[in-house]
Amino acid sequence: MIELLLVGIGTGNPEHITLSAIRALNRADVILIPRKGESKADLAELRRAICAEVVTNSATRLVEFDLPTRDPGTPDYLTRVDDWHDAIATVWQDTLAQALPHGGTAALLVWGDPSLYDSTLRIAGRLGDAVKVTVIPGITALAALTAAHAIPINTIGAPFTVTTGRQLRDHGWPEGVETLAVMLDAGGAFTAIDPTGVTIWWGAYVGMKEEIILSGPLAEVSAQILATREKARAAHGWIMDIYILRRD
Amino acid sequence: MIELLLVGIGTGNPEHITLSAIRALNRADVILIPRKGESKADLAELRRAICAEVVTNSATRLVEFDLPTRDPGTPDYLTRVDDWHDAIATVWQDTLAQALPHGGTAALLVWGDPSLYDSTLRIAGRLGDAVKVTVIPGITALAALTAAHAIPINTIGAPFTVTTGRQLRDHGWPEGVETLAVMLDAGGAFTAIDPTGVTIWWGAYVGMKEEIILSGPLAEVSAQILATREKARAAHGWIMDIYILRRD
Repeated sequence: MIELLLVGIGTGNPEHITLSAIRALNRADVILIPRKGESKADLAELRRAICAEVVTNSATRLVEFDLPTRDPGTPDYLTRVDDWHDAIATVWQDTLAQALPHGGTAALLVWGDPSLYDSTLRIAGRLGDAVKVTVIPGITALAALTAAHAIPINTIGAPFTVTTGRQLRDHGWPEGVETLAVMLDAGGAFTAIDPTGVTIWWGAYVGMKEEIILSGPLAEVSAQILATREKARAAHGWIMDIYILRRD
Repeated sequence: MIELLLVGIGTGNPEHITLSAIRALNRADVILIPRKGESKADLAELRRAICAEVVTNSATRLVEFDLPTRDPGTPDYLTRVDDWHDAIATVWQDTLAQALPHGGTAALLVWGDPSLYDSTLRIAGRLGDAVKVTVIPGITALAALTAAHAIPINTIGAPFTVTTGRQLRDHGWPEGVETLAVMLDAGGAFTAIDPTGVTIWWGAYVGMKEEIILSGPLAEVSAQILATREKARAAHGWIMDIYILRRD
């Protein structure tokens, strides 16, 4: 029997970590660290740094493994994601079998919170009944963005919608929505909508020391955000950004 | 000059607190603790317990103050909320002037995260330029709910909407929405919608030791949730619950 702890660690500020996340990491026999080849976007270095900072149990071992890549040859988005999750689950299974042949507790550090646009729970769901999954909530990128801007996400008592860059680009502004938070944008999906009356609060690397934030009427700051994003991506080798749009 | 730290503390599990929240509380000269008369819903006891646990700076003082109540005589919801926020801002101003006559740093512990259906940022916005507001993000009730159920909030790459019990009751299921998270429900707003094909993941006191969770097809578990909610509210003297609804 293996217990798999999915530990939300926030968005890259090592101080986003909660006391319960620290407790979870210290009760793990192994902590799994995924690597994506030479990519900095795997944030393996940051995961190692967080573990070095907060893991005080000398029996806890770090185990690194290489993530498979998505097959760009699979044309359908959902099938491509599904196949990729299958492949990752197989790698997890092999890694766990090798690291914990007699069972035990394994932990995975999850960027932000495991519930929000993250595949870890879906991959864990493929492991079957021999693995018990426990989730430790983390600071979301949305909370880090609103904190950086010191704004509430909702207007008083009003709903808001959370979506992806792909959805915004493919389907436009959703009907009847006032406030829209956009995650997982490959870049500038906000250029696909009519900016009239729309305000944007944008952030990259939210919560990290590299954090950049910009805000204002979308029509006025759109170009500046795109230029800032490109420059930051070139400088760091990767970027993760998020934004909130609100219509008058 | 006063710096006001709005510190997200998560949903009542003292271990939801982050290292950056602990650092913020320890750099405050005063921590303001609101009281709502004899109500347990002010969670003043929990705030004191968290401070006792994590505040190690002996110079940090706890200052308690009484919250004004909403005037039930004001018929319009938004006006009633607005007037109430004005009244709270006045109390904060008086409390800060007394506690920090020469300026300094004050902290307020905010349930969950300050950006999400919380009035603290709006009240702080009334304090003017003499107060600089800094936000420390916290674990949201949504993240605590999804962690308890070990579920992602979104389906793959799909949007979701966050709303209130009042909105769901008054306006029904929003057009085109698959996943709906409902907060601030005074009780059972999910009974106002057609339960056909809807699954619910419900939780009360999420993250706390009193946590209760229930899930299943809404048509089958609706009555059980209502009964569980009533019983728990009677037993504890207050309740805070939250749920996710998903349509096939």
